[in-house]
Amino acid sequence: MANGIERPLDLLNISKGKEILVQLKSEKQLVGTLLAFDIHINIVLDNTKEMHGNEVKRNLGLTFLRGDTIVFISPASAAIKG
Amino acid sequence: MANGIERPLDLLNISKGKEILVQLKSEKQLVGTLLAFDIHINIVLDNTKEMHGNEVKRNLGLTFLRGDTIVFISPASAAIKG
Amino acid sequence: MANGIERPLDLLNISKGKEILVQLKSEKQLVGTLLAFDIHINIVLDNTKEMHGNEVKRNLGLTFLRGDTIVFISPASAAIKG
Amino acid sequence: MANGIERPLDLLNISKGKEILVQLKSEKQLVGTLLAFDIHINIVLDNTKEMHGNEVKRNLGLTFLRGDTIVFISPASAAIKG
Amino acid sequence: MANGIERPLDLLNISKGKEILVQLKSEKQLVGTLLAFDIHINIVLDNTKEMHGNEVKRNLGLTFLRGDTIVFISPASAAIKG
Amino acid sequence: MANGIERPLDLLNISKGKEILVQLKSEKQLVGTLLAFDIHINIVLDNTKEMHGNEVKRNLGLTFLRGDTIVFISPASAAIKG
Amino acid sequence: MANGIERPLDLLNISKGKEILVQLKSEKQLVGTLLAFDIHINIVLDNTKEMHGNEVKRNLGLTFLRGDTIVFISPASAAIKG
Repeated sequence: MANGIERPLDLLNISKGKEILVQLKSEKQLVGTLLAFDIHINIVLDNTKEMHGNEVKRNLGLTFLRGDTIVFISPASAAIKG
Repeated sequence: MANGIERPLDLLNISKGKEILVQLKSEKQLVGTLLAFDIHINIVLDNTKEMHGNEVKRNLGLTFLRGDTIVFISPASAAIKG
Repeated sequence: MANGIERPLDLLNISKGKEILVQLKSEKQLVGTLLAFDIHINIVLDNTKEMHGNEVKRNLGLTFLRGDTIVFISPASAAIKG
Repeated sequence: MANGIERPLDLLNISKGKEILVQLKSEKQLVGTLLAFDIHINIVLDNTKEMHGNEVKRNLGLTFLRGDTIVFISPASAAIKG
Repeated sequence: MANGIERPLDLLNISKGKEILVQLKSEKQLVGTLLAFDIHINIVLDNTKEMHGNEVKRNLGLTFLRGDTIVFISPASAAIKG
Repeated sequence: MANGIERPLDLLNISKGKEILVQLKSEKQLVGTLLAFDIHINIVLDNTKEMHGNEVKRNLGLTFLRGDTIVFISPASAAIKG
Repeated sequence: MANGIERPLDLLNISKGKEILVQLKSEKQLVGTLLAFDIHINIVLDNTKEMHGNEVKRNLGLTFLRGDTIVFISPASAAIKG
């Protein structure tokens, strides 16, 4: 299940093109499709939605997210579904 | 829709001259036309408006914004329209 | 209106000698004439006034301001007048 | 019991493949199997669970966690069971 | 009035030996005679007084102040006199 | 009593294998046996206990602690005993 | 009175072996004898006391204190005596 993850950024690499959950330090949560990331963990999401629990608060579309505002990123579908 | 975004800063590059939404760590939100940015994500906006939800709180005009105060930047018109 | 701004610091360069509004992370706002700045966005203002909305709270005169306390800098007269 | 720990990261090395407790600055606690880490203490957990005391709040599955959000990491089973 | 200030640290240089007001991020304010500073804006003050508005809360004498705790430094007598 | 302490890290060196009190920025306090530390003041403790005043809140066993969460470290038995 | 202080760290150098007051960002105050410091302003104090105003809250003995938690250091006896 975790094949091929030797370094932390490997998980972001295999998540490109997939939907991910991003937990921010401000307690905000974003869900979107991971398009790009860099070593600062700055990321770009597509079809980004700001979530309140299971409800969509805002549709943000394409979004650039600063890495230093992120707590964790979870690409597993279990996290996104609930 | 996300053609040509390989690195996070690519999204800022293709957003030059367009209106963007900037979410700040202080919970403030700014909307303005992206004129310039650097690798620290310092940005300059024109016709900047400080927003409270959908209402304009202040017209700031040309504005220099420090990168370390930014949470996310969303150039999609969906975000700006609400 | 935004002629000549290719990099964020260009806006600070063309604002030297002019009155600017500085929004601080602490929610304080300062208005003063920009005399100098460096790459850390440390700045020196002259005739500095600490503002509460449109009221002057304190006259600070010449002031050195650390860059890491700044959220945004707006040299447009629209911001200062209202 | 503490054989072979000469540098702090040695403890993370010998914890690979084992369940660990991660205390975050936001007061959140995560439990999961350590798959990978780097010198910034960015880590990847598998079967990640967000905990409230002894109760599972959310199943997050595979999770990338930024090092600068971590207070401590405790691989001892005593911490996880108690 | 602002002759000779080309870079922000020039203001600190011409303030050596004079009384300055230092606004800290913690909302504390210190007034004292500037003896020394470095590029981190670490400073040493003599005859330092911790102020609550116009009242002296504590006499601190010689004081070393870390630069990263400072918001602004105002050497103008207007600021110190209130 | 303070023989041989010329640089701050010397105190951590002579505390290896001894019980220390660690005060965290989050107001948490940990007590444990110092096994290892590095220049970032990341440390590993054995037999770690999270304390509330003089009471043990949790037994954490072996624990990796990030240096940037630490306020002070006191190896003196007086601190641990109360 | 301030002879020989040309750089901020000079004040810490001439305070070695003397009692100093350390104001922390967390509002805690420590008093102790300065044994050692480094360029990060990490310091070691001996006979450290955590103070609440003029009362001793805890005796900490030998203490390693991280520089990034410090607001100011005042070696003047006036500060310590209140």
